Amino acid sequence: DIAPEFGALLVFIEHRFYGESKPFGNDSYKSADTLGYLTSTQALADFAVLITSLKQNLSAVDAPVVVFGGSYGGMLASWFRLKYPHVAMGALASSAPILQFDDITPWSSFYDAVSQDFKSESLNCFSVIKAVWDVLDYRGSNDSGLLELSKTFRACKTVRFPSSLSNWLWTAFTYTAMVDYPTPANFMMNLPAYPVKEMCKIIDSFPVGADVVEKAFTAASLYYNYTGDQKCFEMEGGDDPHGLSGWGWQACTEMVMPMTVSNESMFPPSGFSYEEKSEGCFASYEVRPRMNWITTEYGGHKIDKVLKRFGSNIIFSNGMRDPWSRGGVLKNISSSIIALVTEKGKHEVAENMQGPKYSELTNA
Amino acid sequence: DIAPEFGALLVFIEHRFYGESKPFGNDSYKSADTLGYLTSTQALADFAVLITSLKQNLSAVDAPVVVFGGSYGGMLASWFRLKYPHVAMGALASSAPILQFDDITPWSSFYDAVSQDFKSESLNCFSVIKAVWDVLDYRGSNDSGLLELSKTFRACKTVRFPSSLSNWLWTAFTYTAMVDYPTPANFMMNLPAYPVKEMCKIIDSFPVGADVVEKAFTAASLYYNYTGDQKCFEMEGGDDPHGLSGWGWQACTEMVMPMTVSNESMFPPSGFSYEEKSEGCFASYEVRPRMNWITTEYGGHKIDKVLKRFGSNIIFSNGMRDPWSRGGVLKNISSSIIALVTEKGKHEVAENMQGPKYSELTNA
Repeated sequence: DIAPEFGALLVFIEHRFYGESKPFGNDSYKSADTLGYLTSTQALADFAVLITSLKQNLSAVDAPVVVFGGSYGGMLASWFRLKYPHVAMGALASSAPILQFDDITPWSSFYDAVSQDFKSESLNCFSVIKAVWDVLDYRGSNDSGLLELSKTFRACKTVRFPSSLSNWLWTAFTYTAMVDYPTPANFMMNLPAYPVKEMCKIIDSFPVGADVVEKAFTAASLYYNYTGDQKCFEMEGGDDPHGLSGWGWQACTEMVMPMTVSNESMFPPSGFSYEEKSEGCFASYEVRPRMNWITTEYGGHKIDKVLKRFGSNIIFSNGMRDPWSRGGVLKNISSSIIALVTEKGKHEVAENMQGPKYSELTNA
Repeated sequence: DIAPEFGALLVFIEHRFYGESKPFGNDSYKSADTLGYLTSTQALADFAVLITSLKQNLSAVDAPVVVFGGSYGGMLASWFRLKYPHVAMGALASSAPILQFDDITPWSSFYDAVSQDFKSESLNCFSVIKAVWDVLDYRGSNDSGLLELSKTFRACKTVRFPSSLSNWLWTAFTYTAMVDYPTPANFMMNLPAYPVKEMCKIIDSFPVGADVVEKAFTAASLYYNYTGDQKCFEMEGGDDPHGLSGWGWQACTEMVMPMTVSNESMFPPSGFSYEEKSEGCFASYEVRPRMNWITTEYGGHKIDKVLKRFGSNIIFSNGMRDPWSRGGVLKNISSSIIALVTEKGKHEVAENMQGPKYSELTNA
């Protein structure tokens, strides 16, 4: 929007291993030998080389550069300004949860925030969703129950595990909270304006005594099928969540964001086990995650003290209805490292410096 | 000296691939496959991991850390503060030529400064040294001349190339300029106080008509044989300058500091050819240097503007009689990124964060 005002050139830089940028072609995701080149540090260095070289080629060596990014791209934008101040004079980091590592942010805050989003629309909505998980587990514990549930969920094939249905609902509620925009979403997914409110309207419109599973399914359909063109849903198979994907690799090496679900949330409570995570990663990629690497490389602990007299020109913007905001920088650090917080704002994915596809973030 | 005052712990961190820190044992220097892990960026990350982990193990997570380094270690200290402000709250970078890259500092300034050091002691001293190179080449152009010169230079074996003698003198004058301390040096080498002045005294003490080669040799002996225990000198063989060494690798990959010799210097004029450098590196290591990598990764161009409102707590100290000072930060950048310049100071090699052995820097 403001580029013409500055006579600015807009450059969208693709992150290595995403989109078309496959350093080893279709073999890029085969094993740790090739995936080893997929790190945030290498991506930042790519940006530095590309920007520097581009400016030289365009005879614009003195042109100032500002980097923009949202979500993982927002983390990269802020880290880029911190690590390469000689390349970028400033950064706008939207919805960048750079404090979602180690124990900086309480591990339960993400799902507490998702739950809070639904609770703030309607207590009944929150309670229905909170109740659905046990019912699913109970009914799905035998074959006839699973067959019944598969029909309710309009599954293309009869579902084998009740957890597939829980995951399907879980994803719908979590992602809808992240993208609860005040305008209809048609970028990467189709949703009405204020989709959390819409979901809760659906749940609240059922008679009180109606089946909670039916209520939850219908609400979740809004996320998967707003356009109404899906006749049935693929609940299992399709993308293997344990397959070798770029974001899966990053989450198994450096991007370890521990998350738990508290008793107060609308999801079934769960903990975080490094050992479990590590075993899963080893099985998939033959690597084990480095729990503290991100904070060692980029910082995060006591960020206000560390950056109070170090660094400049970074805007951290967050919408408080975005569950990722809890891991963001929400207070000004100095006169030029500032936090823009919008009470009703949501998760923003800037298109440039964009990393993994949105759907890949599920594995985070 | 001041550690007790702060109740500070002094930690000497060895740089990977130097000293005892050989990641692949004796195979570490075999080829690019292993040497590929030798980069300044990796070394900085090592420091970050080590310091962070050490503080955890010592239950001193909140203890502030200041990094110190001289020469290459000084570059690392300043870069460490810039890249890891969350690990080190400040840096003292002594004799750190972080601007000796690309075209930031004139390529001839290093040898101009060496020459100036000698000229400032005595114009005759400067002129004798300036005259010796042609004489060496002329006399060394045939076997009987080389035999004669070998005797004059007290070579252990008759020298095969006159360039060996030039290099021997060159090293003596250059290194003596770097270490022209006001106190006797007994760290890594033995030298009297003010060794440049002493060398020039030796040259000036000869009768005017005496042989310039004899004068230059006697002066240079001060550098190689101050203790007087060397009966003869190894001029050729011994360490192969094209052998695979750590610093040779770094100079052939990232640490490219172009240097030329101007007509005004006391050394024979020479240029810098990237192609030649690149061919030499390819022959030795099968890699080619990245000319602009250091400034892309760490900056350097317009450092005063870039760091004016970015970063803090770095002291750059330089002695102006150190030829490396010309590639250092010699002016305050901000109220907390400051330059300490001593007019008569020399090259300081702090012992911690120390990198390559002093003698290895010859290949830089």
